Amino acid sequence: MVAPLRIGIAGLGTVGSSVASILRDHADIYEARAGRPLKLQAVSVRDPKKKRSVNIATLKLVNDPLELAKSSEIDVVVELIGGAEGIAKELVETALTHGKSVVTANKALVAHHGVALAELAEAHGVVLAFEAAVAGGIPVIKTLRDGLAANQCTRIEGILNGTCNYILTEMWHGKRSFNEVLKEAQDKGYAEADPSFDVDGIDTAHKLAILASLAFGVRPHIEAVEAEGIRDITLTDMEYAEQLGYRIKLLGVASVSADGVDQRVCPCMVPLSVPLANVHGVLNAVSLQGNVAGELFLEGAGAGGGPTASSVMADIIDIARGVMYKPFSIPVADLKDMTLPKKSAETAYYVRLTVNDRAGVLADVTRIFHGHGISVCSMFQPSHAPGSDVQVIFTTHPTAESSMQAAAAAIAVLPTVLNPPHLIRMLPL
Amino acid sequence: MVAPLRIGIAGLGTVGSSVASILRDHADIYEARAGRPLKLQAVSVRDPKKKRSVNIATLKLVNDPLELAKSSEIDVVVELIGGAEGIAKELVETALTHGKSVVTANKALVAHHGVALAELAEAHGVVLAFEAAVAGGIPVIKTLRDGLAANQCTRIEGILNGTCNYILTEMWHGKRSFNEVLKEAQDKGYAEADPSFDVDGIDTAHKLAILASLAFGVRPHIEAVEAEGIRDITLTDMEYAEQLGYRIKLLGVASVSADGVDQRVCPCMVPLSVPLANVHGVLNAVSLQGNVAGELFLEGAGAGGGPTASSVMADIIDIARGVMYKPFSIPVADLKDMTLPKKSAETAYYVRLTVNDRAGVLADVTRIFHGHGISVCSMFQPSHAPGSDVQVIFTTHPTAESSMQAAAAAIAVLPTVLNPPHLIRMLPL
Repeated sequence: MVAPLRIGIAGLGTVGSSVASILRDHADIYEARAGRPLKLQAVSVRDPKKKRSVNIATLKLVNDPLELAKSSEIDVVVELIGGAEGIAKELVETALTHGKSVVTANKALVAHHGVALAELAEAHGVVLAFEAAVAGGIPVIKTLRDGLAANQCTRIEGILNGTCNYILTEMWHGKRSFNEVLKEAQDKGYAEADPSFDVDGIDTAHKLAILASLAFGVRPHIEAVEAEGIRDITLTDMEYAEQLGYRIKLLGVASVSADGVDQRVCPCMVPLSVPLANVHGVLNAVSLQGNVAGELFLEGAGAGGGPTASSVMADIIDIARGVMYKPFSIPVADLKDMTLPKKSAETAYYVRLTVNDRAGVLADVTRIFHGHGISVCSMFQPSHAPGSDVQVIFTTHPTAESSMQAAAAAIAVLPTVLNPPHLIRMLPL
Repeated sequence: MVAPLRIGIAGLGTVGSSVASILRDHADIYEARAGRPLKLQAVSVRDPKKKRSVNIATLKLVNDPLELAKSSEIDVVVELIGGAEGIAKELVETALTHGKSVVTANKALVAHHGVALAELAEAHGVVLAFEAAVAGGIPVIKTLRDGLAANQCTRIEGILNGTCNYILTEMWHGKRSFNEVLKEAQDKGYAEADPSFDVDGIDTAHKLAILASLAFGVRPHIEAVEAEGIRDITLTDMEYAEQLGYRIKLLGVASVSADGVDQRVCPCMVPLSVPLANVHGVLNAVSLQGNVAGELFLEGAGAGGGPTASSVMADIIDIARGVMYKPFSIPVADLKDMTLPKKSAETAYYVRLTVNDRAGVLADVTRIFHGHGISVCSMFQPSHAPGSDVQVIFTTHPTAESSMQAAAAAIAVLPTVLNPPHLIRMLPL
């Protein structure tokens, strides 16, 4: 009989409760797969009186999560508290320093402090695992580290935030505005009261920075991720997008070139023929470009208790099996500092203008595009009542961001243009 | 300095040459990921004079692959010879018995003899790894074993044969017949001179049996896979399928219920909204239903030197890292014998009839359906010249296969029916 792996869980919210439930319900099969029993030794919760889906009366409770990190009765600490700083960080540091492996779902922590924590893990000969930090139940960390271990990845494109994808999907299917759908999502508990972390792309940026590190062998560089959210996306743009054969998605995109690593989070026009365009609702998906395996596309549940617990438990089973890998696939000492490209890659743009219905407007606009070296790919103007305001849609050939911003500024001050041009990048970024 | 992992490759065809090339070209990054150098120690080839993409003059050649299995200078044997019996099997048995880990891309060998070989691997404390045996560059074996280790899977649906998917895609896009596209595929080297292994579903059956074993914790049972290929699929059926909102794909489907494990390979009508419907050309894809993670969808290159070498090398890197897992995720002793359901699950059918344009035909057919307890879901009859033969398309609600076969037999002998009814199953199986 092999000794059990003794687990301490810090934080029994939705994910922690799911982990505790499946550990209880599937103990036999997990033991067969892990080669040893998995034992939930203790948990720490902030409020022992809170109602939960698991009965905590049968569990050993500790008040201070750091007790889990220091206990001689615990082999692996599962950090489900959250937050890049504070007690979550202290807990993980303490556990690693005490020679315990750590499993965490905390993307902010890994994106900001992953390298320092990986160094601690290496120094103490333990594992730091964070499959659940990115894309919920999709094993994308393992895929990059193990499944694609033979590859140099050159590109990652992902829908990594279920809340944003849900909002965009509902806007399109329900023909509703961003604010309407956001409010409903908040009422249903799908979105936070302060939605900024999700809808402004910050959560996606954290996840992208982690994936880019693993894929490209570089230190995570969250500050280098240019992030733009979905607050400005309108149903009108979605409708024009479909007419053009595209769908608007919030993507995290990272690519590597001779110039360096480009990381960007922004709403994108995704061609309908691309699998990412057809990822609906709260699902997440990632497309990985490997130099040996070619393109690999993964789609699954991006959040929720079950899917996230599935990834947490997969990491625990790995540790129970005795797997010993480096958190970022290669030793921290081998991770390169991220080189940033001197200029962003050129991308095509969708440009929507609202203009007065007057002769000469199109001539003015196209003259400005031409003056900034921007080549127009397509243009259309939906029919409208004579004399009413007119929408004009341009798509461009790939162009530098600086050129497009300069052209947009010049167009915005034309007397016949009623609102600043509405710009959305088009894949490929 | 950690000792290198010394590799012997048996078989330097497309895949073996790719493995040798990437080992040579990416030695540094593989060493960083594996934690030790990977060294190609020796290769065995059938014909040393054959022209290859790698220069074998720099490699140590042995004539007899069994030398690799017995050599004290080799730690892991890569079997790329192929075939369920003969030298491939002997090589793997010999290597395992000599305490060497084995990596193989040989689905026929694993489907037929995987359990016995896994027993040998367990007995000698080594690894038997076969990521490359299923779905080329898609790490679906690792996903089932590691990424979804917390899940009881209930269902697998896959496009697992690139040749069939290429043929079906080209038939549809090029509006051509099965035979035309097959001939072209053979001329281009995408299909074998004897295409039976691919187009009759045998290759898909091997892969499905392996996935079902890993997913459901049962011994592979290849004889229990009902396999039907794509020779009878016509462009006409593809066109009606699109009108109905479906696409015809050759799927391997395995599901588990209280009754047992159902495994089937057959052409299917896949709703266009399902990701599998939009997997084109030589790509492979797998949809996995986990009880904790929910549905996970993977798509990527299913064959070819690069993608297959990517999976072979991922297994080698795992072994170099010291990973020690059971080939079928749990010990062979824990694998259950597969219980077969007493009757197949009920599925909906697409039924195409060619009939004389006479009054009463539809009444006869619908009477027969009714008499066999088959409920019609939809019916349409494209317009046609008066007096010419008529196509009539039915779709049914889910029904037992035996009822449908009996009804089809009764319909076939109606004097007004010109050909035996053409049946295609509709998802979900």
